[in-house]
Amino acid sequence: MTEMKILESIPDESGYAGKALQLLTSNNIKIWDEVKIYINDLEIKGILLPAPTGTDDVIFIKLENGYNMAFSTNKITRIEKLGRREISYKIPEKEARILSNLPNVVIIGAGGTIASRIEYGTGAVKPAFSIHELSQAIPEIFSIANIKPIELFNIFSEDMRPDYWIKMAISVAKEINSGADGIVITHGTDTMQYSASALAFMLQNLATPVVFTGAQRSSDRPASDSAVNVIHSTLFAAKGEIAESVVCMHAYLHDTSTLIHRGVRVRKMHSSRRDAFRTIGDKPLALIQYRNIKYIKEKNVMLRGKYDKSETYADAKFNNKTALIYVYPYMDPEIIDILIDKRYRGLVLAGTGLGHVPENLLSSIKRGIEEKMLIAMTTQCIWGPVKLDVYERGRTLKNIGVIPADGMLPETAFVKLGWLLGHDWDEKTIIQKFLTNLRYEIVKSEPVDAFFRNL
Amino acid sequence: MTEMKILESIPDESGYAGKALQLLTSNNIKIWDEVKIYINDLEIKGILLPAPTGTDDVIFIKLENGYNMAFSTNKITRIEKLGRREISYKIPEKEARILSNLPNVVIIGAGGTIASRIEYGTGAVKPAFSIHELSQAIPEIFSIANIKPIELFNIFSEDMRPDYWIKMAISVAKEINSGADGIVITHGTDTMQYSASALAFMLQNLATPVVFTGAQRSSDRPASDSAVNVIHSTLFAAKGEIAESVVCMHAYLHDTSTLIHRGVRVRKMHSSRRDAFRTIGDKPLALIQYRNIKYIKEKNVMLRGKYDKSETYADAKFNNKTALIYVYPYMDPEIIDILIDKRYRGLVLAGTGLGHVPENLLSSIKRGIEEKMLIAMTTQCIWGPVKLDVYERGRTLKNIGVIPADGMLPETAFVKLGWLLGHDWDEKTIIQKFLTNLRYEIVKSEPVDAFFRNL
Repeated sequence: MTEMKILESIPDESGYAGKALQLLTSNNIKIWDEVKIYINDLEIKGILLPAPTGTDDVIFIKLENGYNMAFSTNKITRIEKLGRREISYKIPEKEARILSNLPNVVIIGAGGTIASRIEYGTGAVKPAFSIHELSQAIPEIFSIANIKPIELFNIFSEDMRPDYWIKMAISVAKEINSGADGIVITHGTDTMQYSASALAFMLQNLATPVVFTGAQRSSDRPASDSAVNVIHSTLFAAKGEIAESVVCMHAYLHDTSTLIHRGVRVRKMHSSRRDAFRTIGDKPLALIQYRNIKYIKEKNVMLRGKYDKSETYADAKFNNKTALIYVYPYMDPEIIDILIDKRYRGLVLAGTGLGHVPENLLSSIKRGIEEKMLIAMTTQCIWGPVKLDVYERGRTLKNIGVIPADGMLPETAFVKLGWLLGHDWDEKTIIQKFLTNLRYEIVKSEPVDAFFRNL
Repeated sequence: MTEMKILESIPDESGYAGKALQLLTSNNIKIWDEVKIYINDLEIKGILLPAPTGTDDVIFIKLENGYNMAFSTNKITRIEKLGRREISYKIPEKEARILSNLPNVVIIGAGGTIASRIEYGTGAVKPAFSIHELSQAIPEIFSIANIKPIELFNIFSEDMRPDYWIKMAISVAKEINSGADGIVITHGTDTMQYSASALAFMLQNLATPVVFTGAQRSSDRPASDSAVNVIHSTLFAAKGEIAESVVCMHAYLHDTSTLIHRGVRVRKMHSSRRDAFRTIGDKPLALIQYRNIKYIKEKNVMLRGKYDKSETYADAKFNNKTALIYVYPYMDPEIIDILIDKRYRGLVLAGTGLGHVPENLLSSIKRGIEEKMLIAMTTQCIWGPVKLDVYERGRTLKNIGVIPADGMLPETAFVKLGWLLGHDWDEKTIIQKFLTNLRYEIVKSEPVDAFFRNL
């Protein structure tokens, strides 16, 4: 790593007020102190966390297991300062070199819940933490790697856009070229699968893991998942053997296990659970339990070491005139017509079953293809392949010129097509590349146990 | 049952040619005969099935376990006619009354793979079997119930439309009023979940089960799932204790088990597996194994017996100016604008995470609501609730007037909103009904094990 940035100082304002502040100041306790609290017979050890501005009746403690918990000041019989955790990572550049036996990991902040706080006035979650604060809040990562935090942008991921994917890809390639052994990107979970796919296609000759992570509970909320997710992501970035764009999130509920999912095969499958992410139609790449990496997929992975760090580069392009449409019974064909009128170049349909659409869409699809729009077919079933040879409607679509996206996820196919169309390649080349398994995004043969059971 | 229709005769043409035909005629065997074939030391008993026109080197046998298998004529050492299964259900109306101790089940044919054949010239699957032929091909159902088959229409389900839902609902209500103890609807699997939801909302005071079933493999293909699905559906229609619109399809691969899924909570989650259907975010209603019904959900079900058959009626309306849109990063707002311009009355969005959309869609959503379009929010995660109180974007959407569809599936919410908008109710009434749990379509508290694991 060419540069070791000096971290900013701990925030001055603890955020506590009223009873909570009184309890803390009367015991000479500051945020980031190691403390022990007594609640009747219970003794709890941890680190005092900063609070949202104006918190007056609870205090936030990071427990030794990594979780953050809130405790009501009314319940606390006693609080005791144990000491102050020295911030060993507040080191100037020359001292950083002493730690050069550790791998170098760059943490790129791209926003999301993981970098957010509850605004207690309204109860809403807003972006707040900086990536530097986040790094400080999870001191464990400094024992895993030399950490360089970069705050690229701080948005919620529903506002993620192709130009931000480009910015991230360029930033990742630059850091790898500069010596990073792995990259962590903290990102909102809503569109993480789209970004992880985008970087998978944009990054060429990838020499290190690129690990997307986030949180389903903000860092200052009880039972936040951010600490475990960031620690495991840092571990995989530093030491993981798979040099792909991946997602690292909770494997199960209430657990300290995370899964490493291939970016082009992952989907957020639950709106609120911490273990919301799932690999679709394939096995996850790895399981991290108690900070041990257990590889699950042995074949068909891109191993670290194939490319030198200097070979990695970003082919960061995207054609915004690309759309993704899930079809439904008797869907209005003008939804497709408007895209043709606006000179869209690409359209990914998520059809029903093996890749079908209602009859009333056929003429618009035909018109789109005649006007040089590339139209690809995926399935809204999420699992399973597209096959345009089995049923009559599929054959009609294929004859018109619809491209079967085989076993690609709709969201991945959308990102892939937009990325391909960002290039000056001719139509034939784009179709050929679209149908080629560039990043194992196409599951050729789904393992029997890669689909889930109801009972 | 007021009328017992006389079934049509067995098709004249067996479909066999060449070696296969020679083998059959030289042994005096016709289709639907009970036969025994010998392949070296193996003896296999079953019923000879008709074949796709021009089949010359295989014969199709329905095995005793209900599965259809193809056998190469080259492998068959001997074939023997055991007898002819008398078609005991070819009985005129007055004789049908003798069997009146059996429940009356109406099988409504609405098309799909279950009523289709492979066209061997092209290999494509086309609608072919009539519901009468289907009934004959699965003689087991006649021991379960008095069967009245009705061929309503024969389409592939990607062409299913709201006016067909209306036709089905009216037909079901009429048959229940006329004495049916249960209804089976054979339907294409592609859009079965939409139709099962539509009938759930349209049918009022439902006195009997309405069981949708279909096939992922056409009836004349080896390992077709149609026999087991139709037998179990007939059983549930005849004897099931839950009077709801449900889906009955394979529970697992290679099995004789089926699951009964609540229509408003089911989704086709795999494009090709026979066990493609899954209840989402809740437990399935029942498991049928070896023709025994095992109820899984005990609470929050609509029991048979609550309403008299005469009370059932179809409130069969739908406003076609209703759309379903899955959002994606940087989605073009003109996709929403075109719907507003066309005076759409309802729009269900499948947002990201807890129900978010990109910022660039906000002004179109606002405009839609100002122009009296009802816009509801679901989640593209499929599992989990929509919550518009947690994040800033959610609050903005709620303030604009977006209706959070809570835990409703996107497809169910689309059908429900279209059905509600088919009425002359005022906006307030429609919103109130949309947010009311009319058919248990809203999962209030998801069981922990109702989400799936990757490992």
